[in-house]
Amino acid sequence: MAISTQPYKGARDFYPEDMLIRNYMTNVMREVCLSYGYEEYDFPIMEPFEIFAAKTGEEIVNEQLYSLIDRGNRKLAIRPELTPGTVRMIAQKVKELTTPIRWFMIGNNWRAEKPQKGRGREFYQLEVNMFGVETFEADTEIFSVIIDIMKKFGADDTMFGLSFSDRRLINALLLDTLKLSEEESVKVRRMMDKRAKMPKEVFLDNLKELGLDSTQATKIEDFMNTTLENLGTVIPQEILDKNKGYLNIKGLVELLKSRDIYKYCKFDPSIIRGFDYSDGLVYEVFDRNPDNNRSMFGGERFDKLIEIFGEKDMPATGFAMGDWTLLEFLKSWKLLPELSLNIDYIVTRFPGRDSKYDKVLQNVATTLRGFNKNVVMWITDGDKMDKQLKNADKKDIRKAILIGEQELKDGKIIIKDLKTREQEVKSLEKCFSEIE
Amino acid sequence: MAISTQPYKGARDFYPEDMLIRNYMTNVMREVCLSYGYEEYDFPIMEPFEIFAAKTGEEIVNEQLYSLIDRGNRKLAIRPELTPGTVRMIAQKVKELTTPIRWFMIGNNWRAEKPQKGRGREFYQLEVNMFGVETFEADTEIFSVIIDIMKKFGADDTMFGLSFSDRRLINALLLDTLKLSEEESVKVRRMMDKRAKMPKEVFLDNLKELGLDSTQATKIEDFMNTTLENLGTVIPQEILDKNKGYLNIKGLVELLKSRDIYKYCKFDPSIIRGFDYSDGLVYEVFDRNPDNNRSMFGGERFDKLIEIFGEKDMPATGFAMGDWTLLEFLKSWKLLPELSLNIDYIVTRFPGRDSKYDKVLQNVATTLRGFNKNVVMWITDGDKMDKQLKNADKKDIRKAILIGEQELKDGKIIIKDLKTREQEVKSLEKCFSEIE
Repeated sequence: MAISTQPYKGARDFYPEDMLIRNYMTNVMREVCLSYGYEEYDFPIMEPFEIFAAKTGEEIVNEQLYSLIDRGNRKLAIRPELTPGTVRMIAQKVKELTTPIRWFMIGNNWRAEKPQKGRGREFYQLEVNMFGVETFEADTEIFSVIIDIMKKFGADDTMFGLSFSDRRLINALLLDTLKLSEEESVKVRRMMDKRAKMPKEVFLDNLKELGLDSTQATKIEDFMNTTLENLGTVIPQEILDKNKGYLNIKGLVELLKSRDIYKYCKFDPSIIRGFDYSDGLVYEVFDRNPDNNRSMFGGERFDKLIEIFGEKDMPATGFAMGDWTLLEFLKSWKLLPELSLNIDYIVTRFPGRDSKYDKVLQNVATTLRGFNKNVVMWITDGDKMDKQLKNADKKDIRKAILIGEQELKDGKIIIKDLKTREQEVKSLEKCFSEIE
Repeated sequence: MAISTQPYKGARDFYPEDMLIRNYMTNVMREVCLSYGYEEYDFPIMEPFEIFAAKTGEEIVNEQLYSLIDRGNRKLAIRPELTPGTVRMIAQKVKELTTPIRWFMIGNNWRAEKPQKGRGREFYQLEVNMFGVETFEADTEIFSVIIDIMKKFGADDTMFGLSFSDRRLINALLLDTLKLSEEESVKVRRMMDKRAKMPKEVFLDNLKELGLDSTQATKIEDFMNTTLENLGTVIPQEILDKNKGYLNIKGLVELLKSRDIYKYCKFDPSIIRGFDYSDGLVYEVFDRNPDNNRSMFGGERFDKLIEIFGEKDMPATGFAMGDWTLLEFLKSWKLLPELSLNIDYIVTRFPGRDSKYDKVLQNVATTLRGFNKNVVMWITDGDKMDKQLKNADKKDIRKAILIGEQELKDGKIIIKDLKTREQEVKSLEKCFSEIE
């Protein structure tokens, strides 16, 4: 029986026209990261299972991880995200690496989610992190990288925005103000992370099911809707004044304002993030389209994640940007440029001729390639010129080289512009000094 | 307990210095493929299990495949090679795609082999194929792509060579001359593929264990050591004259000679290849170092592989080049260039200063980035200049920007060359029109 030609459900084939888009996106990301002096790295797509089991979060680990046992009885997982592997690499060479460490990578991840429009089981992420700097100057640089990537894609502050909060501020609410236990607070925090997916009443009911009373539940709802100025009405000011998250956010806001990037940014206490390892600043980048105001990607501080590898804290901050949502964003704002295969020449083969002038054609192609041109050759004998040129049109090739019997005898070539249909005859020896 | 910081056995972490090498290698490959008008594509690293089970070969499928069952009870495998997925994509759009199809991709594969020097469980391959052309003109172009990639890496014909044969010629020996059954011939062919790994006596004994008599075994050994001219002494000439593989090789040799690339190439009937889908021309590229004369990678015709997807023949030819062996080759011939991070500037921060001139520094960095420079900023206050410049040295950064109290007042900047230690003072407004 014939095997299906479809890829695995939720995973993508990249035909050349799709690959042009993917390469365009990764090139923009790479260029901006390099312009900030970030260094590219990578690690295997399959990792020891336990590095995700530790702190990636129960939903991903229990429901979405692709895992397997190898022939040596080791449990492996296909990475669902890039942060734990990154920290593993940092931990491995923590004594040799000079801080600050600026690293980025672009890698494929897998999660067994329900495939839907704009979301698959396989996705690429750009992961950008700075290690070794504990102050918000590091986070500010990371924000700049995000903003510059989005700007390089053509987006402005009417199209996207960055909302941030701090996990320690959430602790100020749940632990210090509402006096929840550590365990309760983790459950409540996870529910808060899902707030945007449900109506207010359902959210409050869910909090009550977790054991909160009505006053506590309302306070959480109030917290998620407050501003930096009014935080003191939800959390007592004396708690705030001692809270590192609060102080961090105040300093960050000041710096963002002085650098003229505050117009892209906004404090928003409803930002929670889903990873268990987030332990300071947390942020998400939103599409500002009022009809499609959704979170596209995010980032956080994860200073303590390195502890799972037996190392002491390593200040760490960064984000991961997924390709599915980014592509949807670029399409919806019409920011995707026209991309083409970029083939400069087709060297045609005169119909009916035998292969005696094959060598001339080869030389022409080789010479053009030496001038950094991309050149397709027509390689089979006897095909009609019409067929060859139609094929070139389909591939959007710019120019055709034609060498007929007469040109061969005269040592000339015809260069035909396939857009304007104009053609010029050149001498074979001279033409290549003036190729453009 | 602390989790190990090591990657999975046989898989590689790419620290920035390793990634520079990998990017260099893939850039060279990509550039040559594009210069021949090949189009880049990609497909998921996890594929339905059955596409490999069909024709990839029993050793890989039974002993080396990483497979798993998903939550929907589908059997998946991490790809051990790139050809079946490529053909799946061709089959999926066979009616829309215009031939000839020139495609390439660079992708990661996994095989559970015993890790050893120069060979891991995870590896990258460049896969290059042409579809739709059944004659050896297609194979010749593929050979040219291989040779041009090797030349672009700096290799010449003293360093590498391409040996080729044809599976149909092997059939002429095993089926037509020795009258083996299809089933016997597959077993014998697989043994022939392992010939180089054992002494002659062991090889002959192994053939006898497969049921061959001594004359047959010797004939196979003779076949593997013969030349194109002497083939008639092993296989009756009347069989050869009707054999498509033999005719194909004769035509190919003629074309290779006329194109001046025959010095890289050689007919070698000991070339077999391990894939079950090889069905015509087969070839391998060897390191010509007499002390390390090993096969590095290879390719073949696989016109009939598309049948597993229920399609009729699609002429197909191409190769896959692995990154481990290529890297070993480049190192052993000292062809790897010096690669650096390519950071142009560090914008330093004057020690002891507060953040009041932060904005000037930001503007300098932003302006430099606008000129396509890669710029690292020193972001924390109060660090000694010495520490900042040492850090820049470690990262091989070319120039440093210094702005002290006096320069800030005068609207000037100091640009210090970190190699020559020379420095020049420029006016802040003017300098950026003359940045190099």
